[in-house]
Amino acid sequence: MKAELFDLVETLGEGTVLPSERELAERFSVSRVTLRQAVGELVLEGKLLRRQGSGTFVAPPKLVQPLALVSYTEGMRRQGVQPDRTVITVEQLGADEGLARDLAIETGDPVVHLERVLLADGERIGLESTYLGLGRFPDLLEKLDPAGSLYACLTERLGVRFAEAEERVETVLATPREALLIGTNPALPMLLLHRVTYDLDGRPIERARSLYRGDRFSFVARLHADR
Amino acid sequence: MKAELFDLVETLGEGTVLPSERELAERFSVSRVTLRQAVGELVLEGKLLRRQGSGTFVAPPKLVQPLALVSYTEGMRRQGVQPDRTVITVEQLGADEGLARDLAIETGDPVVHLERVLLADGERIGLESTYLGLGRFPDLLEKLDPAGSLYACLTERLGVRFAEAEERVETVLATPREALLIGTNPALPMLLLHRVTYDLDGRPIERARSLYRGDRFSFVARLHADR
Repeated sequence: MKAELFDLVETLGEGTVLPSERELAERFSVSRVTLRQAVGELVLEGKLLRRQGSGTFVAPPKLVQPLALVSYTEGMRRQGVQPDRTVITVEQLGADEGLARDLAIETGDPVVHLERVLLADGERIGLESTYLGLGRFPDLLEKLDPAGSLYACLTERLGVRFAEAEERVETVLATPREALLIGTNPALPMLLLHRVTYDLDGRPIERARSLYRGDRFSFVARLHADR
Repeated sequence: MKAELFDLVETLGEGTVLPSERELAERFSVSRVTLRQAVGELVLEGKLLRRQGSGTFVAPPKLVQPLALVSYTEGMRRQGVQPDRTVITVEQLGADEGLARDLAIETGDPVVHLERVLLADGERIGLESTYLGLGRFPDLLEKLDPAGSLYACLTERLGVRFAEAEERVETVLATPREALLIGTNPALPMLLLHRVTYDLDGRPIERARSLYRGDRFSFVARLHADR
């Protein structure tokens, strides 16, 4: 039953309203209880269906962000999606112990903290916090448009070359503040990406924490065996 | 307040019960309402705290699975965790269109489907479904111990060399059946990993769908810039 429903949904276009329960139950020769359960499971699994108001719609496919040394900006553009950012915080603070370790600086050293809501075609889909050492990038705040691409600024205006990244992906629930900023329900699972990037000399460039809507995002990676 | 609580929790050992609300509120000179909110947020964020029965405990750190051409078995052993599996399904079926495309075989060609609950030190932490073409591995079912490592069997007994993988990570809620098999609450966010692996000639080896408990798992990757 679920497989047949899944096949039907795949043939409908994005944004289409699913036919009524009665109609579908007749088409598949099942009871409405069975049908309702199958629809409910597909919605819960995040597979192609999304409930909105009183209807059930065919959901757009999830956005795909490459797990590669590619910025959010670049990842979205490759899919034909317009990336944008809303600046929430631009501040200077002293590095705590963990941040100092990650950025290979001293505890208390000045860092820039940039917090931005990420938009895809105008829709809020994530929240990103980035930390950079001010000792290394003293003129960052003059050179950077906080609503623009950080990676473009670093590579084009500050001559930085990205060589490596350590990334960790997990799933968490948003805090009430995060849910408010992204405009989601706090019960919605989010994908959380921790990243530290390094230049050709192995020196840390930035540490970022990116939270993406779990119903709108997936990460892809192409992996190769160690030679 | 949350930062101080976080620091305190970090100094307590795994499995420790958190001191009482009254005690902590006094220690941090905050109201019990403020304290309860901070604890609640840390629990929700999956950060170091976990509620169980009437107490709040310091949770063990999440297991880390490398996003690399490494099997579940190998990934767990590297962390000193004993991997194991419980076999749920071993069946032979005809490939549907999507599976045939992924495995580069014809629709209807025979495939082996292996479904196993993944265990870490005896605890159920995931569910994995793997599909392999029977045309390519005709004696798989004789050679494989279904409760053993599939990758070890493929490389050691069938001479397969893994060269590449395409992986996609997303977050979903478990279906009722999956939650039952893994022994979790269906409201718990899960990490879902889709993987297709390829040999040195670019031929697909297997397609796998692995579901991991979101409160117990994270993925890590080390990425390099394209040269």
